[in-house]
Amino acid sequence: MIPRYSRSEMTNIWSPASKFRIWFEIEAHACDALADLGVIPKEAAATIWEKGNAAEFDVDRIDEIERETKHDVIAFLTHLAEIVGPDARFVHQGMTSSDVLDTCFNVQLVKASDLLLEDLDKLLEALKKRAHEHKDTVTIGRSHGIHAEPTTFGVKLAQAYAEFERCKKRMELAREEVATCAISGAIGTFANIDPRVEEHVAEKLGLAAEPVSTQVVPRDRHAMYFATLGVIASSIERLATEIRHLQRTEVLEAEEYFAPGQKGSSAMPHKRNPVLTENLTGLARMVRSYAMPAMENVALWHERDISHSSVERMIGPDATVTLDFALVRLTNVIDKLLVYPENMDKNLNKFRGLVHSQRVLLALTQAGVSREDSYRLVQRNAMKVWEDDKDFLTELLADKDVTAALSEEELREKFDLGYHTKHVDTIFKRVFGS
Amino acid sequence: MIPRYSRSEMTNIWSPASKFRIWFEIEAHACDALADLGVIPKEAAATIWEKGNAAEFDVDRIDEIERETKHDVIAFLTHLAEIVGPDARFVHQGMTSSDVLDTCFNVQLVKASDLLLEDLDKLLEALKKRAHEHKDTVTIGRSHGIHAEPTTFGVKLAQAYAEFERCKKRMELAREEVATCAISGAIGTFANIDPRVEEHVAEKLGLAAEPVSTQVVPRDRHAMYFATLGVIASSIERLATEIRHLQRTEVLEAEEYFAPGQKGSSAMPHKRNPVLTENLTGLARMVRSYAMPAMENVALWHERDISHSSVERMIGPDATVTLDFALVRLTNVIDKLLVYPENMDKNLNKFRGLVHSQRVLLALTQAGVSREDSYRLVQRNAMKVWEDDKDFLTELLADKDVTAALSEEELREKFDLGYHTKHVDTIFKRVFGS
Amino acid sequence: MIPRYSRSEMTNIWSPASKFRIWFEIEAHACDALADLGVIPKEAAATIWEKGNAAEFDVDRIDEIERETKHDVIAFLTHLAEIVGPDARFVHQGMTSSDVLDTCFNVQLVKASDLLLEDLDKLLEALKKRAHEHKDTVTIGRSHGIHAEPTTFGVKLAQAYAEFERCKKRMELAREEVATCAISGAIGTFANIDPRVEEHVAEKLGLAAEPVSTQVVPRDRHAMYFATLGVIASSIERLATEIRHLQRTEVLEAEEYFAPGQKGSSAMPHKRNPVLTENLTGLARMVRSYAMPAMENVALWHERDISHSSVERMIGPDATVTLDFALVRLTNVIDKLLVYPENMDKNLNKFRGLVHSQRVLLALTQAGVSREDSYRLVQRNAMKVWEDDKDFLTELLADKDVTAALSEEELREKFDLGYHTKHVDTIFKRVFGS
Amino acid sequence: MIPRYSRSEMTNIWSPASKFRIWFEIEAHACDALADLGVIPKEAAATIWEKGNAAEFDVDRIDEIERETKHDVIAFLTHLAEIVGPDARFVHQGMTSSDVLDTCFNVQLVKASDLLLEDLDKLLEALKKRAHEHKDTVTIGRSHGIHAEPTTFGVKLAQAYAEFERCKKRMELAREEVATCAISGAIGTFANIDPRVEEHVAEKLGLAAEPVSTQVVPRDRHAMYFATLGVIASSIERLATEIRHLQRTEVLEAEEYFAPGQKGSSAMPHKRNPVLTENLTGLARMVRSYAMPAMENVALWHERDISHSSVERMIGPDATVTLDFALVRLTNVIDKLLVYPENMDKNLNKFRGLVHSQRVLLALTQAGVSREDSYRLVQRNAMKVWEDDKDFLTELLADKDVTAALSEEELREKFDLGYHTKHVDTIFKRVFGS
Repeated sequence: MIPRYSRSEMTNIWSPASKFRIWFEIEAHACDALADLGVIPKEAAATIWEKGNAAEFDVDRIDEIERETKHDVIAFLTHLAEIVGPDARFVHQGMTSSDVLDTCFNVQLVKASDLLLEDLDKLLEALKKRAHEHKDTVTIGRSHGIHAEPTTFGVKLAQAYAEFERCKKRMELAREEVATCAISGAIGTFANIDPRVEEHVAEKLGLAAEPVSTQVVPRDRHAMYFATLGVIASSIERLATEIRHLQRTEVLEAEEYFAPGQKGSSAMPHKRNPVLTENLTGLARMVRSYAMPAMENVALWHERDISHSSVERMIGPDATVTLDFALVRLTNVIDKLLVYPENMDKNLNKFRGLVHSQRVLLALTQAGVSREDSYRLVQRNAMKVWEDDKDFLTELLADKDVTAALSEEELREKFDLGYHTKHVDTIFKRVFGS
Repeated sequence: MIPRYSRSEMTNIWSPASKFRIWFEIEAHACDALADLGVIPKEAAATIWEKGNAAEFDVDRIDEIERETKHDVIAFLTHLAEIVGPDARFVHQGMTSSDVLDTCFNVQLVKASDLLLEDLDKLLEALKKRAHEHKDTVTIGRSHGIHAEPTTFGVKLAQAYAEFERCKKRMELAREEVATCAISGAIGTFANIDPRVEEHVAEKLGLAAEPVSTQVVPRDRHAMYFATLGVIASSIERLATEIRHLQRTEVLEAEEYFAPGQKGSSAMPHKRNPVLTENLTGLARMVRSYAMPAMENVALWHERDISHSSVERMIGPDATVTLDFALVRLTNVIDKLLVYPENMDKNLNKFRGLVHSQRVLLALTQAGVSREDSYRLVQRNAMKVWEDDKDFLTELLADKDVTAALSEEELREKFDLGYHTKHVDTIFKRVFGS
Repeated sequence: MIPRYSRSEMTNIWSPASKFRIWFEIEAHACDALADLGVIPKEAAATIWEKGNAAEFDVDRIDEIERETKHDVIAFLTHLAEIVGPDARFVHQGMTSSDVLDTCFNVQLVKASDLLLEDLDKLLEALKKRAHEHKDTVTIGRSHGIHAEPTTFGVKLAQAYAEFERCKKRMELAREEVATCAISGAIGTFANIDPRVEEHVAEKLGLAAEPVSTQVVPRDRHAMYFATLGVIASSIERLATEIRHLQRTEVLEAEEYFAPGQKGSSAMPHKRNPVLTENLTGLARMVRSYAMPAMENVALWHERDISHSSVERMIGPDATVTLDFALVRLTNVIDKLLVYPENMDKNLNKFRGLVHSQRVLLALTQAGVSREDSYRLVQRNAMKVWEDDKDFLTELLADKDVTAALSEEELREKFDLGYHTKHVDTIFKRVFGS
Repeated sequence: MIPRYSRSEMTNIWSPASKFRIWFEIEAHACDALADLGVIPKEAAATIWEKGNAAEFDVDRIDEIERETKHDVIAFLTHLAEIVGPDARFVHQGMTSSDVLDTCFNVQLVKASDLLLEDLDKLLEALKKRAHEHKDTVTIGRSHGIHAEPTTFGVKLAQAYAEFERCKKRMELAREEVATCAISGAIGTFANIDPRVEEHVAEKLGLAAEPVSTQVVPRDRHAMYFATLGVIASSIERLATEIRHLQRTEVLEAEEYFAPGQKGSSAMPHKRNPVLTENLTGLARMVRSYAMPAMENVALWHERDISHSSVERMIGPDATVTLDFALVRLTNVIDKLLVYPENMDKNLNKFRGLVHSQRVLLALTQAGVSREDSYRLVQRNAMKVWEDDKDFLTELLADKDVTAALSEEELREKFDLGYHTKHVDTIFKRVFGS
């Protein structure tokens, strides 16, 4: 996570100020529950809320205390005591640092999820709009980078829409994975804290109570969370790669929007490079890589160790901030994408009818030629187009073995583009519901 | 995937014979649909089923043809034609190889999922049984590998149960991710094949129709699938690591079952090593690693390329076979685990009462001592136990600052183990529902 | 590792027969040293060599014994005793299984390295040949997939040559990393075996004695080894990606060799797909992924645990076999690569002189126009070429601000291709030494 | 990279100020060479040095320009022009942004390497000191976490020393990998810049000229660099894991230094946790993970794309800063490590002589008992010790089958600890050279 690839909406979630505010709320909600249970005075709980809400936590002061105590939660509690006064002794009763840290981390991940879900919604909206705009823009479909058969640019974007809709569902599940609260005390036995405290805090924070925490929230949840971000990043890479390909000089079927004042290259003024999507490719590599340490974090020793902590202090912000930035950037790219239907048309016709080879193959077999023979007939004419710049239909019409099976009219009919787009409606209905 | 770490139940799913049988079924179901649509004769479809069902596909013969044609699906279709006769020309009409390959791969992954779900059920059963057996077996809980506070061995296993129940839910979602069928022809436009063929084949195979495939099933689905296996493997590593720790010579609270004829070490006959759980740790590393290439597979070029194929030919079997083996091995380990409650008790008392330090801390604060002072009082007595082999209660009773706040009776009451296990029922109810 | 992507030259190294032969040699060399030291009778050592050399080890029999003893080295020693007779009791004296297993693994990795080094030599040879063949074949250089300035196809291949020469050096270093022998007995203290035994065996096997093994060879060596294979695989991916790009329909500057009988697509007979290089891309993902578990293997517990073993049983063969196959396949691709200079020329001229924009920019600044103004002048003419299909030189000659600074002759001179290739000799000299 | 795990020595290398200073030096050295070649006036080069050296680059101003131009190098050059005046038009002639960016990145990586090498030297020093201090401190060696045979604590540290010495050598090689300079202009053809400029700049910066860059330094170099950091991190994890194990409550043979004011747990005042080494374990996971995107960066498209850039802007600082911090922290841990020889002794004797089982086994075979029988004899007595708390020597002396082969004196002699440490000198000589 670096400023260049960050949006404040997401970095704010991870700021020290946000963190300490969440810590406070966890402690204060717990005090309410403890007060209801008669463990601490109700007035104390009220005072804690009142003074804590009124105060701004002094991040520098907390850091200063931490340098002495070498313990971040104790540092915060000490600072809170400076604000709250004597009633502060009722704070954190029966709790352990992990109750605060883990619940806070999950709150942050949930907030991050909500932002990422918003990002996905906007991306889906952009994809939907552009897909419908180009629903009937015919373009060549490519397998292996080689022309295959026609499709439409709208179908390309519909596929991306369907993919990111899956990503959204995965993101919702990932959010659910980490939306838990653990206030279970040392080793998670509730020996010193009533389980009802956890239930209360969980409810207030919109979380579920962690069924069995062992002082810490089990890290398989977070592994699943970060693995999901990695998959979403990989889908970003796919769409970014598509655009990079379409912008290649020889293809030029689409282009990232190029701002008037922008310079593509310091040395070569003629260039317009797909730098945003190349950047997204790199960012995807990063988000993906964070899945690995998250998975290694699962195997904590016994009830817990703290090896996961340094990893999460990094990948918590790194993964969510980078993915948020990437989704927003991708949305902008899609939104403003320059699309060149005339180039799509030009490319489509580059190999003089070859894209219709399958239809001819099928027609031959349906006319009674064996599959093997049909394949050979089509291939021998296709190779002339490929190698000698011939026109496919002309060659077929000149091939006696072909015309023995298919009339000129039948052959010509196989070169109709509409044949390939006749199910675009079906696909759009499946993807967009209408 | 190597024989040493494989079970035939899973390797069978990936055998050439299984694969060709699935290919045949996809083709034959498609013929049924094509016949219903009037594209091919109904008798041809019937003949294809009849002859195909009666035959065993000759893997060597198919390999031989492939060496010539360098194309596996064409090789299979050629062999199928040898079996079916002239009606074979109606097979595969309007389809492309990916329709067969991708749908087959998904069928295999679904079958693998079903086996993995069975494995998880058995593991859950074993964990549940052992958890209840040791629900009240008190043992020391450890954070950072250091004694913390008492818990029970049943709670440890209940946590594992809850974790693998989550894994089961993830596995079900992963299965759903890949349970799709794509029969959409070249570039996925249905130009040469009616979408109803896909719907028919999907239904027959228990799959959903892929909303928009671009000749291939989009690989974000598989990325999510293999990432999920990686998370499950990480949970295996966690439980395996727990057992490795418990079997350490100095701890010896539990042990892998050691068969009578078994030799622990060729050189040191006295040894009984946790080799199964060490092995599981290694296997987990492998399954986890397969998530990376699966994520890199997502960004196929344009409508498809074939870079994913070599990856999947490896990790399809490698990941599922290894995870299946690991789950079964772990189940056996749990099932037969030797548990030593007397050693748990011995270890628990190793630091002469120190595990009760938090209770004393809380009691002091509740008796009106400030949190800071309480911490200092407890810590200074704890350090004597830690460093000078003293007994914690004795030290506390001899500390005037402590006894000024708490009576001997109050102090003694803090050393009751039952205090720590009083919420085990709550935890079990949360995890097992009763 | 699957047969489809394997060569027997490499799989043989990893066969059970090879492994047991290496085990035997380690044991027999150790016996020689023990005999020299007077620990065991010289005749016994001689008998062991003689009978062992004469015998074929029965893999099935060893497996059978292992199923009973659950220990592979003991199983082998038991079988060896069946062959050698009573003198077998002198075998393995003071040694532990790891002495055999780890030294054998390293021997296998060294043999694998030698094969990989041969592969690299052949690849380098192919690259050198084709580089010189196309030293002066002008082609457009591309940054961001966009035409930049001219270079030659030979320079592209020279870069690949330089990259794989680095890979070769890395491979030599990786070989050195694992070329060690450990015969240090339990915990590596040499308590039961004289260090001179290790020195003898090491020398006989062409290895260095591991300075301090703790029963096992430290796994940082293997982490480095597999990480190196991952880097080499990534270089393969780079060159494979280059070829995939060059074969794209719209580019078609080079093509994988396409065998006469080959079928590109079962449905579309016209297609010639870069399937070999796509395959290499996938194989690279796999080899790269093995670096992760190899790195996780480093942190063995205390003097050793056995978690690394299952990982290495898999990635030992998987990584080396796959990389060997990939290198050989890449060599074939390069060797037979179809190169189309006329298409290179056609593509180069696609943007009507735009590739010379930098020269014009430089000329303007050298003629005294400010850098900012020069950039603007060039860009405004370039955009007309880009967007309105104009010819760059024509536009420049019509731009008064340009011609105010540069004469027509000066401008025309900037469109000379030779300008861009004048340092090809320098580059070749740097790379090939001549 | 976060402040908590950063040292300013390393973060300074990556600051914008450092970066712009390096950019300036690259440009200014290039101007010198251009002036020598007569391309630009010598006075201009002198002015550029003079004014650039005198100025502080205004990072905010450069950022401001970049927001407009969306190009970082152009932004810098514009700012430089503000400082240098008219002669600025001679800067960057014939160069492209990558010449500056890539050479700068390599300079930063080289500086980072030098710091990491210093770190490694200090770690080696600490290990050497503590190894010699505990050369003869006998401790139990453990395989699989189970007591095996005695070794010394010094040998453990000697192994770590040997491992980090290998890491140092790897680091030196990694430094060499990236110590190159590329000033080759667009596409790397030197069309607009004489190769002698590159040679001059390289020499001045202590780098080698990149033999063939294609506008960018090939990224296999950086992949190797970051993979090497990942391997070093894995060695850190190994040593950190060792200490975590040794500090476990039941083992307690060594402990991280615990500062007087430190609090181990907010809830449990008695605890002293190995938090530094747990932290190192997490940091190792992070550094290791960066190897993956670095490897994925290798396959740039054609002559270059910019997908690597975002990755490197992150992992450049992230990996080096984190590794630097981890090495320094590990050095402190080793330096101050509390070692408890008396606990080592206590643990060693935990199983009443069992650690000598191998010697008895060997003695039996040397006395003529078959290997199989010897193993059985030893194992049956060992199991009594293991399971019934018996003393191993006592049991052996009471076993007629044993005493039939070995006298009491012979048996007693097998229980001598000195037997196990007799080659410590050899090991130290191998590792430390004396």
